[in-house]
Amino acid sequence: MVSADDAVKFIHPGDTVAISGFASAGTPKDTIPALAARIGQVRAAGTDFAINLLTGASVSTDTERLLAEVDGIALRMPYQSEPTARGRINSGTMDYVDIHLSHVAQQVWLGYYGKVDIAIVEVSGITESGELIPSASVGNNKTWLDVAEKVILEVNSGIPSHIEGMHDIYYGTALPPNRKPIMITKVDDRIGQPTFRVDPDKVVAVVRTHSPDAGSPVTAPDAVSQAIADHVLDFFAHEVKAGRLPADTLLPLQAGIGNVANAVLGGLDHGGYRGLSCYTEVIQDGMLHLIKEGIVTHASTTALALSDAGFEDLQANIDFYHSRIILRPQEISNHPEVVRRLGLIAMNGMLEADIYGNVNSTHIMGTKIMNGIGGSGDFARNGFVSIFLSPSTARGGAISAIVPMVPHVDHTEHDVQVIVTEQGLADLRSLSPRKRARAMIDKCAHPDYRDALDDYFLRAQAATGAGQTPHLLGETFAFHQRYLETGSMK
Amino acid sequence: MVSADDAVKFIHPGDTVAISGFASAGTPKDTIPALAARIGQVRAAGTDFAINLLTGASVSTDTERLLAEVDGIALRMPYQSEPTARGRINSGTMDYVDIHLSHVAQQVWLGYYGKVDIAIVEVSGITESGELIPSASVGNNKTWLDVAEKVILEVNSGIPSHIEGMHDIYYGTALPPNRKPIMITKVDDRIGQPTFRVDPDKVVAVVRTHSPDAGSPVTAPDAVSQAIADHVLDFFAHEVKAGRLPADTLLPLQAGIGNVANAVLGGLDHGGYRGLSCYTEVIQDGMLHLIKEGIVTHASTTALALSDAGFEDLQANIDFYHSRIILRPQEISNHPEVVRRLGLIAMNGMLEADIYGNVNSTHIMGTKIMNGIGGSGDFARNGFVSIFLSPSTARGGAISAIVPMVPHVDHTEHDVQVIVTEQGLADLRSLSPRKRARAMIDKCAHPDYRDALDDYFLRAQAATGAGQTPHLLGETFAFHQRYLETGSMK
Repeated sequence: MVSADDAVKFIHPGDTVAISGFASAGTPKDTIPALAARIGQVRAAGTDFAINLLTGASVSTDTERLLAEVDGIALRMPYQSEPTARGRINSGTMDYVDIHLSHVAQQVWLGYYGKVDIAIVEVSGITESGELIPSASVGNNKTWLDVAEKVILEVNSGIPSHIEGMHDIYYGTALPPNRKPIMITKVDDRIGQPTFRVDPDKVVAVVRTHSPDAGSPVTAPDAVSQAIADHVLDFFAHEVKAGRLPADTLLPLQAGIGNVANAVLGGLDHGGYRGLSCYTEVIQDGMLHLIKEGIVTHASTTALALSDAGFEDLQANIDFYHSRIILRPQEISNHPEVVRRLGLIAMNGMLEADIYGNVNSTHIMGTKIMNGIGGSGDFARNGFVSIFLSPSTARGGAISAIVPMVPHVDHTEHDVQVIVTEQGLADLRSLSPRKRARAMIDKCAHPDYRDALDDYFLRAQAATGAGQTPHLLGETFAFHQRYLETGSMK
Repeated sequence: MVSADDAVKFIHPGDTVAISGFASAGTPKDTIPALAARIGQVRAAGTDFAINLLTGASVSTDTERLLAEVDGIALRMPYQSEPTARGRINSGTMDYVDIHLSHVAQQVWLGYYGKVDIAIVEVSGITESGELIPSASVGNNKTWLDVAEKVILEVNSGIPSHIEGMHDIYYGTALPPNRKPIMITKVDDRIGQPTFRVDPDKVVAVVRTHSPDAGSPVTAPDAVSQAIADHVLDFFAHEVKAGRLPADTLLPLQAGIGNVANAVLGGLDHGGYRGLSCYTEVIQDGMLHLIKEGIVTHASTTALALSDAGFEDLQANIDFYHSRIILRPQEISNHPEVVRRLGLIAMNGMLEADIYGNVNSTHIMGTKIMNGIGGSGDFARNGFVSIFLSPSTARGGAISAIVPMVPHVDHTEHDVQVIVTEQGLADLRSLSPRKRARAMIDKCAHPDYRDALDDYFLRAQAATGAGQTPHLLGETFAFHQRYLETGSMK
């Protein structure tokens, strides 16, 4: 049992440090600020000090910021969403490797990032037999505890203690040729145990804290988000009518974070649904509400990114939520095998899509990273239907989310089936690229940009004699170049 | 029992026709030429006649050509590789929908392409109880027989009769929420039955033929293919040394069709390997040789695209091959669950890659389709390691296979791990995009193009203040534009 300041003395320049944390949940509260301070001091004294930082996904904003401010991160993997870190990446002083969240555990097991020197993992308690009770996110913690040479545990008494038992930590994964089927056939199937194992000989420090997760704020949907949500709900009704989705229960829902996803979940409140389920990577307040109302029966996730009020609700009604929410390692919450088998309805945000249905989730104007791909590819690629959502414009209309060609592709035409903006919904399934372009321009583009997109599409066909995917290579990025030069794509 | 000419009278303009065939194996031999002739006659008489054509993958060249020549195909799905059809697609007279081969069965079950009016399926025989013995490819035949309203069977006595029993037709797939784990944990696990089922009431015609599959020619590897293969074999040795691949058996191999894949398989002959296995979608002659030598113990596929000599070998040694080769439906040979679990070494060709590791498998100069994505995405995305292979130049050096940005993305930076040309191998794993660019230019690009790529990369960094993925939006496709204007990227 040591102080955070003492614990971080086990961390050395060049170390690969794997920490807990997924979205706003489960980042070590005291150890990381202490590490950032130590790096700052060492650097101030003239010695270089940076680590390679592996996480679940994004971590608490302070964590990412403090480490970035002292230039403490040499390499970052797999997802970030904090402005200071983003600035370091885009200025070339931090390496960022953007991989699918379902790939992280196996790639680290295989040593793609060298050995993991130290893991720093927040837990909500330690059992009498020495097993670890996870906190509000699971992420890659099981893997970190298994592969790291040294372990620092942060035992946080600020996490609702009754969370114990909500987790399902599966120890059956392996590297090939020893992989077995993952026997989840329903969202609420439990295949693991409620605690992490750790080799006590590896634990070099235990730090005690009492710090709740910083609440993940929830904002009410605006008119644009609400319009997007309405189109999605219409689509569900259409698919039910076509016999492709069960009428009451649909299929398990996956939704990204943010206003639009919240609006969709909010809309389910009024859709007459009962007994829905969710298989996703992050649960926010809206999900608690749906569970309480009986609209959602079970929800599986790897993180609880709740607001302060959400955590209070969880705490106050823990007996009710306990059997209805399951927290899994992200290699299971995002596992291609399970995603495919359960048949997820995958709903994820995007920065922009092109008229042929290719999606950019990560890069501003093709060059600067925004966040990362996160789990969107895991769900979109292997899900039952892959839906991407975005307002049709950004920056007060200066940016069109529908463009002739995206300057970075995170999801290809083969993996994108439905695109939704507040203007409408383009159902790209079974359409050839030329027909997709018609749907994208007519249904999804903002009216201010329709003529320019139409003009591009028609001239591209004329210039190339049609073609499977007509493009004018000299002006594919005219929208983006205009924005960079004038501040508007118009 | 009717003639092919009579059988095709069941096919009407606007019908969706699902036929057997995967690569050169298993296309109906007589019915399709009869259908093409009928369409030609009806059209000559002034009536419009076109069908929607669904297949396994490519079908025999004649099939695709004859139907395209009479403008008999309105919509084509999921893969084609024949020049006449390609011309119709690129001139805008044929719709082509390019989807992952593993997605075909479920999308058709869900009705994305409307109802399937008629299936035309080649079989090698009919059992006494009325079940169907598959021929040299399985493809989507199980699905076609299940979903089609009418069925035409072509019973081909030209297929080696002892092929019976080599097939493993799995009837356990379902639509969610009723999906169960697919219990394959080894390449040679059998989970199905040797025959197809068909509702006899749906069978409107049986056509008898005696026509072997047109042999799929094999060419000896040239120096470039051999150099690529050597780099791949070095990589295997490197991965074995790093403890990531089992020394003798590696992990199951998947290889696309063509010279380069053949060279890699040929190279395994001299690598000291024993007890390898393959889990792939097409087997060519080289695989028979490896099996005969004991280098490969078991091979799973959905098609046997053999040369005439290969079929003779199969026939002559059928007792030996019978237990060593398994033919599965393509929804299983390419299934994400199985691909991930077995941990495939995915090796696929490409048209071009960009310096950041995005791969174009399908589009010439961004607009015109070449073939289709086929199964490459199924294997690359969920496999153990995804390797893409290509000569560093095409058309006598006028085209560089390594470019600043690919004008069409079929495999994103998140799904591409290793790129190989005859120049060398770029191991992109764990590298940020800027470091990937260094590896791609130094290891994979042809020396004639290295300076131009370097120049682009350096100027892009300078202009954007580094950035995660530096690009100059005004000249991303300068290589391609130069080729279109001058006939050379130089």
